[in-house]
This record gives sequence, C-alpha cells and structure tokens, in this order.
Amino acid sequence: MTRAELIAQIKAKKSFLCIGLDTDLDRIPKHLLDADDPIFEFNKQIIDATKDLCVAYKPNLAFYESLGIKGWQSLQKTLDYIPKDVFTIADAKRGDIGNTSSMYAKAFFENMDFDSVTVAPYMGKDSVQPFFVYDNKWVILLALTSNEGGRDFQLMESNGKALYQQVLETSAQWGTTSNMMYVVGATRADWLEKIRKTIPDHFLLVPGVGAQGGNLEEVAKYGMNKDCGLLVNSSRGIIYASKGVDFAGVAREKAKELQQQMEKELLKIKVI
Amino acid sequence: MTRAELIAQIKAKKSFLCIGLDTDLDRIPKHLLDADDPIFEFNKQIIDATKDLCVAYKPNLAFYESLGIKGWQSLQKTLDYIPKDVFTIADAKRGDIGNTSSMYAKAFFENMDFDSVTVAPYMGKDSVQPFFVYDNKWVILLALTSNEGGRDFQLMESNGKALYQQVLETSAQWGTTSNMMYVVGATRADWLEKIRKTIPDHFLLVPGVGAQGGNLEEVAKYGMNKDCGLLVNSSRGIIYASKGVDFAGVAREKAKELQQQMEKELLKIKVI
Repeated sequence: MTRAELIAQIKAKKSFLCIGLDTDLDRIPKHLLDADDPIFEFNKQIIDATKDLCVAYKPNLAFYESLGIKGWQSLQKTLDYIPKDVFTIADAKRGDIGNTSSMYAKAFFENMDFDSVTVAPYMGKDSVQPFFVYDNKWVILLALTSNEGGRDFQLMESNGKALYQQVLETSAQWGTTSNMMYVVGATRADWLEKIRKTIPDHFLLVPGVGAQGGNLEEVAKYGMNKDCGLLVNSSRGIIYASKGVDFAGVAREKAKELQQQMEKELLKIKVI
Repeated sequence: MTRAELIAQIKAKKSFLCIGLDTDLDRIPKHLLDADDPIFEFNKQIIDATKDLCVAYKPNLAFYESLGIKGWQSLQKTLDYIPKDVFTIADAKRGDIGNTSSMYAKAFFENMDFDSVTVAPYMGKDSVQPFFVYDNKWVILLALTSNEGGRDFQLMESNGKALYQQVLETSAQWGTTSNMMYVVGATRADWLEKIRKTIPDHFLLVPGVGAQGGNLEEVAKYGMNKDCGLLVNSSRGIIYASKGVDFAGVAREKAKELQQQMEKELLKIKVI
C-alpha cells in the first residue's frame, strides 16, 4: 500500500486505528473452540465487525508461530480475509544479517502479502535494507517500546542522545517516509514532541493504547502531523473486551469508541 | 540440554563446531530439487555426513519461513532428524514484550523442541525472561554481531562503555551461565578478550568463521574458557562447499578440517 492510499483510508474512515490480532486459544470465547480453525474463526468475526472502523490489522506473529504449522495456516487465511484496502502489519520484530533479512522479506512480502513488517534495529543498516527492495511495502522499525524492559537499553545516552533517538536519526536516512515507519510506545506520549522534531513526517505505530495504558488524546496532540502520521494500535482492549458469544459485537463497540475519539483528533488538526 | 551435557559432547567429539543450516532452494545441488522435500533431503544428508564432527546445528529460521508452511514442515522434520545429543539452535533473533516472548518461547521450546533460540536485546529484560521458564533451554542473546550494520548502534558509547558491553553486563544478571549464551561476531576476535572480562563463564556463539571471515585460532585464543565456552558456527563454508552430487562428502571434509583445528585448540588449553 502506498502512503497516499493509507492517508486516503484514514480520511475516508475518520480513523487511524490499528487492531492487533494477538489471537490466543486460551483467551478466545469457548464456543469457538469447536470450529475447524478457532483462531481464524475468531479473527474472521473480529474483521467482519471492525473493518469499517480501522485502517490496519496487526497480527502478532508469535501467537501464530506458537501453534506451529496450524498457526501459520490460520495466519495465512486471516491475511487473505483482510480486505485489500486495510493496511496489514506482520508484527514479527525480525532483523538479521543481509542475506537472512532478505529471506524474512521474502517470507512476509512474497510468500505472504503483508504491507509491512516490524523490524528490530540492533543489527543496523544491512539488516533493514533488504526489506526496502519491495515496492509499496514498509519497514516499521522499533524505536521506543512501551514495555518496562524498553528502558534497559533504549534510554542509554551517548553525547546527550538516547539510543532510541540515535536509532531514529540514523535509520531515517535508510528509507523514506513512504517505506518506513517507527514503533513508539504510547506510555511515553510526552516524548513524542521530541521525536517529532527528529522525524516530522514519518508515520508512527503507537502500541499500548488500552491494555498498556496509553492516552489517545495526548498521543494525538504530540504525535500527529499534517497527514495524521499515526497508527494507534489496540489489541486486547478490543478483541478480548468480551469472552462471550457477543465478543465481535463488543469488539465493534470498543473499536467504535476509539474511532470516534480519533475522528475528533483528526478534526482538531484539520486532517479531515 | 544442560551445560554439563554440552561440555561432555565437546570433549567427546573434540569439537565445538556448530553447523548453520541456512538451507536455500537456490543454492542446494540441482539433483535434489526433484525430491519430495528438497530442503529436508539436503539437511538430512548434511546431518548424516557431519553429526559426529559437530556439537550443534543452527537452522536459520528465515530460510524456512521464506517458504511458508512447507518451510516449517521441512524445519520440523530436520529438527526431528537431528540426534538428541547434538545441541540445537533456532536462529530466530526473536524478542518482544513479555506476553509475546512467552509465545515465541512456546513456539520453539514446546511446539518444537529446540535447545535454544537466538534473541535480540533491544526490548530489554521482560522480552528475554519468558524464555528462561523452561528447564535446560537456552537464550542466546545478540551482543556484538559481525555484519557491517553491527557498528551502527552496538558500538555507541555511554560513559566509556559500548552498547554491546552494556548489554552483556546488564543481561548477565537476568539468566545464568547454564541458560544463557551470547552471540559475538568472529570478525572482531580481538575484542573477545575484553568480553571475557565481563562474562568469563558464559558460552559464546561465534558466527562468521568462514564466509564472514573470522579466524578460528584467534577466536579460540581470546574466547575460550576452562569449559571451552565456545560454539563456533560455520554455515555456507560447509554446506555449500560443493554444489555437486558430492556435496555431503565435501561438507564432511570441510567440517573435519574445522574439527581438527578445534581439537588442537582444545588440547592447547587442556579442555581435552
């Protein structure tokens, strides 16, 4: 998907919501466990109930990998089921030496047809570049993560600059604002202002609104740019809002609440 | 596998060789392409030819993932075929927030029965800890990688200490020398001396001997400890040494050469 198409989706749906498909057999409603493929059945109903409210779906690869080959089958079916006008993110946190990253790119962009993949920056430029070979595909690079361990190394300062800032500055030279985004944890929304000085134009994928405690209004205030420039993710807060037979309807309500808040934020800065 | 069992293997085989199974349809001998599962057939013949010479096999997950479900089937068959007394490494470079790393741990240690998995440190402690839940399973954490991009962030200094050194010092507190190893790129063998001051007892997985240009004697000189403490990996230099029908025999010769050099190094420091 191109940047222009993504922005058009955001304007049309009045939403910059990304829904995380962290689908776990232990957490989905019990009545689905009799289905042939409970993981896909759950995702299908979530997608049906929310596809007009969100602009992206983000399957968390670990949840599928943990089920082995059956999990990969569920993932492929899910990806095939997502409408083509919704941006897809393989949340995989991959990254390796060049010839190996090329293989990961092939896995997610050729064998599967994801629009983007999350990548870890630790191994540097040649671990990221192979993903740029594909037109209209995106790298979403980890910068500042919202988990407690995010502080262990990402805040390490060198010449007054934290590692995550150095990651932003350096890596912004590797790709463009049309093939690269960054993961920025929402629990540190006040830092978004600083981040926007370094990368004013890139899209940011902001996880952690909801279960991880981020605040949407603050994220929008400090993180938005003239094209919106944000994808805000919610996973558990939407997909596990109900464990009953009504789970998809409740997921829709939760997604709708977020979409309506997002609409207000988009109006404030006149994106719509 | 326990640390004692690994050390016993090293002594019995007079080897600390790890063979990387970076198995690529574009690089395996043409005559294998007619097999039902060419990837597994290649690996099977490599394993048959080298299992008495190496103490570990390291399938590179990207190569299997790039083939989708068929690739995962080849990987599972390969893992099942590796003798139980050979240490297995899922070279996956995973790492995510806690509940997600738990799923990766489940993927590699429960659904599959690997002895270890490579993990990226960027997301910190809670991204690594879930892998320690399993007895006799290992995390192999990226510290210093041998690729050019390894210099982009890993050498960033804070208070006179490079990021990779900080990763070693901090993470050494998370696990033990019996459930944690480190990836240290062989092209920087002279730095091993410094690394050994920080982590004298941990095992190091050293990639890059061969295709990536590392020197075995130097690695042994600066990297060995009283238990050997090294797994030295070679992938392309062994498995792609010949593209002919004799590929497995030639792979054995290359592995034998390395094993013999390793035997000398083990004798020097009286591990055997």
